[in-house]
Amino acid sequence: MKVFVIGAGGNVGRLVVDHLRNANDEVTAGAHRQEQVDDFRKQSVKAEVFDLLKQPEEMAKQLQGYDAIVFSAGSGGKTGDDMTMLVDLDGAVKSMQAAELAGVKRFVMVSAIFAEDRTKWVTIKPYYAAKFYADEWLRHRTSLNYTILEPGGLTFEKETGKVTTDVSKSGGSISRGDVAAAVTASLHDDSSIGKVIPLISGQTPVKTAIDQAK
Amino acid sequence: MKVFVIGAGGNVGRLVVDHLRNANDEVTAGAHRQEQVDDFRKQSVKAEVFDLLKQPEEMAKQLQGYDAIVFSAGSGGKTGDDMTMLVDLDGAVKSMQAAELAGVKRFVMVSAIFAEDRTKWVTIKPYYAAKFYADEWLRHRTSLNYTILEPGGLTFEKETGKVTTDVSKSGGSISRGDVAAAVTASLHDDSSIGKVIPLISGQTPVKTAIDQAK
Repeated sequence: MKVFVIGAGGNVGRLVVDHLRNANDEVTAGAHRQEQVDDFRKQSVKAEVFDLLKQPEEMAKQLQGYDAIVFSAGSGGKTGDDMTMLVDLDGAVKSMQAAELAGVKRFVMVSAIFAEDRTKWVTIKPYYAAKFYADEWLRHRTSLNYTILEPGGLTFEKETGKVTTDVSKSGGSISRGDVAAAVTASLHDDSSIGKVIPLISGQTPVKTAIDQAK
Repeated sequence: MKVFVIGAGGNVGRLVVDHLRNANDEVTAGAHRQEQVDDFRKQSVKAEVFDLLKQPEEMAKQLQGYDAIVFSAGSGGKTGDDMTMLVDLDGAVKSMQAAELAGVKRFVMVSAIFAEDRTKWVTIKPYYAAKFYADEWLRHRTSLNYTILEPGGLTFEKETGKVTTDVSKSGGSISRGDVAAAVTASLHDDSSIGKVIPLISGQTPVKTAIDQAK
């Protein structure tokens, strides 16, 4: 599968690139900064600068011919930062519009746990709001074959290969590596299309968890 | 008509309250701060604190029994301000959801010129983005009888009673008083339902301009 990863220079994105390569997908790393692109190229990964502040028509030129797009960009979720609006929300929506313009049907979004429930936005509320409105656009205003992954608090802990989609207790955390594994599993499992899948660390192998997600 | 004005303490909102009172509407001024509420009450205007950071279910309690809602709140459009996301976007959408919960069908939104066209967001881009996504929600995600007014650059100049909806040249400005007149005219003219109406200062009487808007 030919996959374009938006936000490949980020802490989740670079692990997504690794996982997709290990799964023998043909990956292009779309990164914010030229130095990130250069780093990927040193590892023989196809990479290019992808600017979320551009217009969808310009973005679409870069997305021609791909089978799927992964959106794992994040402005950092800092408060008091215009980029929450312009990257996490508008950049995400423009990526969706660009995907549609380019004829790419499959779109995997890395969102955040409980983004859809305002009463659970405790910290970094503007970031959660951005994810909420971006996810709503993906679900209701596009015809993309989407999967929305909603990881809990992201950690740098060792990847375990095991997660759970049961976040009914009170959320939880998950390693970025396990999120990347779930992105890859979702792309290879069409039963995840049209689903919003919460994810925290757990006891179920990633592929099984994605396959059995409701 | 019984009208609840959200953002009544703002520079447009207080003029909307004046215009509606002059038109013999029964107005409640929903304001952000208690001191604004106190000021309205000194002028014998019914007023209450309306908090855009609350949940829609709580907001809805305050909106019961009204015929229409005007949203003219604004966080100030400053850059680097979380309130752009939480007030101008999420506060607006929660107001719509609250209106629906309360069974209020009519909703007049004070938006901003060219909010629907990203290529024209030159300054305060996060503010325009907030208005864009709020307007999109109103148009596509609610069943409210909406009118969206898109005034040009707001001035404190004298109200002229005359405007134009032709902004094809390159936009323009409009006095806040003329915006307030247009809000009132829209509420009293059901032909404005379902329309997005740009507004700058011009030569057409406000009522005529609203009535003839496409």
